[in-house]
Amino acid sequence: MTAGAYALGVDFGTESGRALLLDLHGGAELAVSEVAYPHGVIDRTLPATGEQLPPDWALQDPDDWVAVLDTAIPEVLEAVDGAADAVVGIGVDFTSCTVLPVTSEGVPLCRLEPWRARRHAWPKLWKHHAAQPIADRLNEVGAERREAFLGRYGGRISSEWYFPKLIELWREDRECYDACYGFVEATDWIVWFLTGTERRQSCTAGYKAMWSPDDGLPSAEYFAAAYPGFDRPAAKLGTEFAPLGTRAGVVRPELAARLALSESVAVAVGNVDSFVSVPGAGVESPGTFVTVAGTSICDLVIDPAEVRLPGITGVVRDGILPGLYGYEAGQAAVGDMLAWFVEALAPAGADYSTLERAAAAIGPGATGLVALDWWNGNRTILADADLSGVLFGLTLQTTPEQIYRALLESIAFGNRRIIENFDEHGLRLSEIVACGGIAERSPLMMQLLADTSGLRVSVPASTQIPARGAALFGAVAAGAFVDIAGAIAATRPPIARSYEPDTSVRPIYDQVYAVYRSLYELLGRSQAGLLHDLKRIYSERRAS
Amino acid sequence: MTAGAYALGVDFGTESGRALLLDLHGGAELAVSEVAYPHGVIDRTLPATGEQLPPDWALQDPDDWVAVLDTAIPEVLEAVDGAADAVVGIGVDFTSCTVLPVTSEGVPLCRLEPWRARRHAWPKLWKHHAAQPIADRLNEVGAERREAFLGRYGGRISSEWYFPKLIELWREDRECYDACYGFVEATDWIVWFLTGTERRQSCTAGYKAMWSPDDGLPSAEYFAAAYPGFDRPAAKLGTEFAPLGTRAGVVRPELAARLALSESVAVAVGNVDSFVSVPGAGVESPGTFVTVAGTSICDLVIDPAEVRLPGITGVVRDGILPGLYGYEAGQAAVGDMLAWFVEALAPAGADYSTLERAAAAIGPGATGLVALDWWNGNRTILADADLSGVLFGLTLQTTPEQIYRALLESIAFGNRRIIENFDEHGLRLSEIVACGGIAERSPLMMQLLADTSGLRVSVPASTQIPARGAALFGAVAAGAFVDIAGAIAATRPPIARSYEPDTSVRPIYDQVYAVYRSLYELLGRSQAGLLHDLKRIYSERRAS
Repeated sequence: MTAGAYALGVDFGTESGRALLLDLHGGAELAVSEVAYPHGVIDRTLPATGEQLPPDWALQDPDDWVAVLDTAIPEVLEAVDGAADAVVGIGVDFTSCTVLPVTSEGVPLCRLEPWRARRHAWPKLWKHHAAQPIADRLNEVGAERREAFLGRYGGRISSEWYFPKLIELWREDRECYDACYGFVEATDWIVWFLTGTERRQSCTAGYKAMWSPDDGLPSAEYFAAAYPGFDRPAAKLGTEFAPLGTRAGVVRPELAARLALSESVAVAVGNVDSFVSVPGAGVESPGTFVTVAGTSICDLVIDPAEVRLPGITGVVRDGILPGLYGYEAGQAAVGDMLAWFVEALAPAGADYSTLERAAAAIGPGATGLVALDWWNGNRTILADADLSGVLFGLTLQTTPEQIYRALLESIAFGNRRIIENFDEHGLRLSEIVACGGIAERSPLMMQLLADTSGLRVSVPASTQIPARGAALFGAVAAGAFVDIAGAIAATRPPIARSYEPDTSVRPIYDQVYAVYRSLYELLGRSQAGLLHDLKRIYSERRAS
Repeated sequence: MTAGAYALGVDFGTESGRALLLDLHGGAELAVSEVAYPHGVIDRTLPATGEQLPPDWALQDPDDWVAVLDTAIPEVLEAVDGAADAVVGIGVDFTSCTVLPVTSEGVPLCRLEPWRARRHAWPKLWKHHAAQPIADRLNEVGAERREAFLGRYGGRISSEWYFPKLIELWREDRECYDACYGFVEATDWIVWFLTGTERRQSCTAGYKAMWSPDDGLPSAEYFAAAYPGFDRPAAKLGTEFAPLGTRAGVVRPELAARLALSESVAVAVGNVDSFVSVPGAGVESPGTFVTVAGTSICDLVIDPAEVRLPGITGVVRDGILPGLYGYEAGQAAVGDMLAWFVEALAPAGADYSTLERAAAAIGPGATGLVALDWWNGNRTILADADLSGVLFGLTLQTTPEQIYRALLESIAFGNRRIIENFDEHGLRLSEIVACGGIAERSPLMMQLLADTSGLRVSVPASTQIPARGAALFGAVAAGAFVDIAGAIAATRPPIARSYEPDTSVRPIYDQVYAVYRSLYELLGRSQAGLLHDLKRIYSERRAS
């Protein structure tokens, strides 16, 4: 790679977006600019009308995303001399499945009258959960019909995915459904906005819309069996999906002028924030367990072999890096669970850092407690949203700090369980690369991951892992590298901190983990009905 | 009963003692005086030497008890005109098993040089737990030898009882053991002090020293099998035990003068604070479940039939009221568990009353949680000190107030389980009488007991239930009544509040209780090894 070539990575998160200017010669992060979405997460009232939104709704405003482009890109270009001319490509990544209905010109329906006043016309954020009954129905019918595609998703699809959200639109606002040309992932919409050309990618098609290169979509008969009349599943999704790293086009001339970019800048097809963390973290080969630890944990593994793993979130060919199967697994409540503790139960004045210090002083196995970290259900490997958290071993001497440490240990045990699941099915893992807010802020959590798994944990020296990954795909789209592997090799971030497993404490954790594992099987499988009953009784009481 | 006859009840608790002047005509409480023990619970350093006490030790100073007599009795006599002449009898009750080594003159060894400097010479308080390994050994050998006496104690004896404490003395300070004439219950020592005559009673012999009127003590062979050389179990206990209500003697003349009492005042043999609550609360007949709800819960039932109940703390003939079998059951952590919550986890500024209001507003089954109230192990019916507390159903929305309500509900469910255990074995219960601090302070807890059990809960209008019961036995000893039943009938306290079961919520609690009951069996019996493992790992880590 010639020196002096840069790429832009634009990372769209839940509350804000940011642009990163990356030096393709060595991978230095030259400038970053972050912009909070003016409307944030829209989960109370619809901006256009003030209408109160139902429970479990979560929307966004596409103008907020455009504001990120308009502000953050010029800012990073201005920060570095000669940057505007040095940028060869742009990649974007987005939360997923965040989807919106658009016209055939790519205009979001929510920008147009009269649709603006209809809540279904707005982008539905990944964590919009109102389509849960639809996901339940799709799972039920899929299980009855023994649909083979479910095997790629650990046996269950999520309410956060494409078809539950699309069928929700189809059932609840048919006019809006009929009026839209397409129902597109936000990451594809941003690329469309940048280039003026519609080009959807295969990553979200595979992970969120149950599409595969070999089998296409689940059959129309399947969908119609669940929802009679809904028999054209590809109607709003399309059928052509470009591989990651494909050049979608170049930045539209009027937009290039507005953003102070040169007109020849290539734009890659869209990416997803979690998956793009693999190249962003410098990982290009099998055997590495990439764990993105934030509000929840998303675990990513790439491998040449396809294996059907129980409880996997999804396995998609070319889904993370071209030519390999991409595996996604995860833990549903991580930062969320710790935040709940700090807010609901921590002593007055305690914060993450005081709790971390106190928890570190307690030592392995010295809490007397075990937790099942199911505060938001279990994602992998039980794939059961109706489970809930459990805390065992409470005594009159139990301290809040012991409970906090038990929560951290339960996250590590859940992680070990997932790694074992890969190992047991022939996908051997030899190291962990961790990124995300928890990796940056909790050395104790990282040490626990190392000590319980017996694997080294490395934390790359970057707070912009997803944006780095997006930028690399932009560079590939621009032809700056032959392929993504070459881009990763040329720009791999240094390791900020690594955590070696302490073999002296492994026997202690093995003992506690044996208890955890037994309780996990007992309450998560053989007697899972008990926690399900509890949740059902609770829902009935709240509803009454 | 002639008008104008009074009795004194002196109640010795864990932190203080109090005297009550009771009008035997109608049962009015004429005066009360409470005196805190100057040394309280001695669990850190030995007063005589400053020596640091080992963990799990808890001692008291007998001079503190005498201070209660010296201060509280003259105070209540002074408060009511003509009281000194009207008092016909005195009864005392004490915590149990609180025991001390004494000389043949009844002088506590800890008052004498050189014994004063030896920690084993001091009274061991009921909650002195350092003899746990000895209790474990006695249980193990008892089970191996299939000792029939264990059936009267639900299959297990407690480390708090007489023989674990006596064998601890025998093993750890043989000189002190050899030097003492007797090892006596504090309640018997107080009577000895008052009258100058040694007279031990049958209640503690039955509940705490495994004695029964028919079978006497467990055999010398049994004790010697557990502890070779310890083969004279009656040596420090004696063999003669007087029934409750027996006149032990009259107040010693010099003490009568010091306390401003007339010399003819009769003194009853000693009583125990929990058991004496039955007559104190006005209960004289079978079918009533008396629950003394404080730090822990002690449940008492009287019945003409003897039944071997699983998990019972003890069943003793004449143990509570003469002529009936007295059953004791209980829950190990009640007020203690709530205090733990307030101290460790409650929001800043929250106290019992704010938490009670918030918990009351939540409503039945609306916490999403179930707790197993085993913070201090389970007393009845599992009789397993190595169990620990569990909290099921935690989510990101769980509030501290929901947890607090779940703890209250778990106490009520534990209570229902105990009542069912009586019912299942043919002892039908038709009402609950509740006393103790929790009965006075938590109407929600009382309503929960009623709603979950389906029985009316009555709370007598008195904060001096044990002292009332002690006074009644004093009155019987003085001949003021023919028997204790007559004394109870003449003085029964009015009911301050009663709580009717709300049948409309019973179906909801039945659903939650079904989950509780399944989890109870699962983690308390079939998979109890999991919580035991957790406790073992914890002990090993603390010790290392």
